[in-house]
Amino acid sequence: MRNIKITLEYSGTHYFGWQTQRKEHRTIQATVEKTLCKILSEKVKITGSGRTDSGVHAVAQVANFKTNSALPLKKLRLALNALLPGDITVTRAEEADPDFDACRHARGKAYRYVILNRPYRSTFLKEKAAFYPFPLDVALMRRESKCLMGKHDFRAFCTSKSSAKTFVRTVRSISIKRISCAMWGMPRADTSCLIAVDIEADGFLYNMVRNIVGSLIEAGRGRFPSGSIKKILSSKDRRRAGPTASACGLYLMKVNY
Amino acid sequence: MRNIKITLEYSGTHYFGWQTQRKEHRTIQATVEKTLCKILSEKVKITGSGRTDSGVHAVAQVANFKTNSALPLKKLRLALNALLPGDITVTRAEEADPDFDACRHARGKAYRYVILNRPYRSTFLKEKAAFYPFPLDVALMRRESKCLMGKHDFRAFCTSKSSAKTFVRTVRSISIKRISCAMWGMPRADTSCLIAVDIEADGFLYNMVRNIVGSLIEAGRGRFPSGSIKKILSSKDRRRAGPTASACGLYLMKVNY
Repeated sequence: MRNIKITLEYSGTHYFGWQTQRKEHRTIQATVEKTLCKILSEKVKITGSGRTDSGVHAVAQVANFKTNSALPLKKLRLALNALLPGDITVTRAEEADPDFDACRHARGKAYRYVILNRPYRSTFLKEKAAFYPFPLDVALMRRESKCLMGKHDFRAFCTSKSSAKTFVRTVRSISIKRISCAMWGMPRADTSCLIAVDIEADGFLYNMVRNIVGSLIEAGRGRFPSGSIKKILSSKDRRRAGPTASACGLYLMKVNY
Repeated sequence: MRNIKITLEYSGTHYFGWQTQRKEHRTIQATVEKTLCKILSEKVKITGSGRTDSGVHAVAQVANFKTNSALPLKKLRLALNALLPGDITVTRAEEADPDFDACRHARGKAYRYVILNRPYRSTFLKEKAAFYPFPLDVALMRRESKCLMGKHDFRAFCTSKSSAKTFVRTVRSISIKRISCAMWGMPRADTSCLIAVDIEADGFLYNMVRNIVGSLIEAGRGRFPSGSIKKILSSKDRRRAGPTASACGLYLMKVNY
């Protein structure tokens, strides 16, 4: 049996997240599985690197599945992109080792959170970035975020309904910068109204990025005194953190194996 | 009476273009007029700088309208963005001279055409760029485009149903380059799969940019011999040009007054 690894780029706006939970909910996983069944004429179960929530996007989610089909990889990718809805794209399809498991073998992930920080919304980034109209001090957000680097108990940034066994995670990098989006005539880098928060870690707790970003936004707007993020982290108390930032700004950028 | 100038950013995907023609067709103009009527409690007629076709986008379309209302500009913009659908955004609202006419006073326009040039589509640029999966030689397209600069009869690039009195237009600049779209992890500038064709002119004939781009794509793919664009231009024969490139890659970027 072949074990195939696929890389997926999707917009989460019209889905109830990655994972199939209730039958009546449209999910990314179920949509891809249904399309694979059609193409391969066999029942296929895919394993994703992890869940993404409703409204959360992915630039490079990874999944794998077993199949008896001999369909060449290029044809498989073409067929998937022809039959999948336009908001899910398969960017790569590769043969994987027989024991490769997209979930269990993931050693880390990178997420990006994009904030549109100007007084009016953007037509082209609708549901693709979180709209925040009040001025944010990016340098201050960057300073406040430094304390998150390294191995910590991130309980304060974990939404309470989590069933995680441990709240300890290692943040390998965190970067906050303005990014350009030249395509739609937006100003470049330094003066851009788009702020990207990039976080890489060995794993993430439930809503961890969105809770961190929600707190950093409060700090960047001057509503949390300097040093707050460090205090929230060490308090291990979710109630002290800022609100959960909205799902539409979040992107799963990479899964490391 | 006040004369107000507004700048609009819109996605043309779900509209039958700018101009109201048949009552049952949803257009940008009608949508903005209806919203203005609601806000100002009076009948409002807006004048756009010109039409954009069904599916064509705008980063900065300009329009003006007369009103008796005393509503401050900032409140007007906020109210418009609150009531307009998410795919139409008012980025600026300004007082204009009483005689300002967004259509008659336009001295020139800039359009951008965006091509996604890689073997697979993009989730996030769905309907926001024209997908062309075969390799394109950008340097060759650039060389071929040079002959379009300056004052010419552009009849060969005008879709025949045009009612233009003259086919002479002056192209002030034309640039073809790879652009980055860092936001979704796409490679930067040089190696980017996004190609932008920027054309600035004193005016444009019906489908002119899309017909030029359709021909440049044929040239860039090596299906037209070198020198073809010049020959097509001087032939004044629409049948010799390439196909009309799809609407979804086209953006009205700027109107000069």
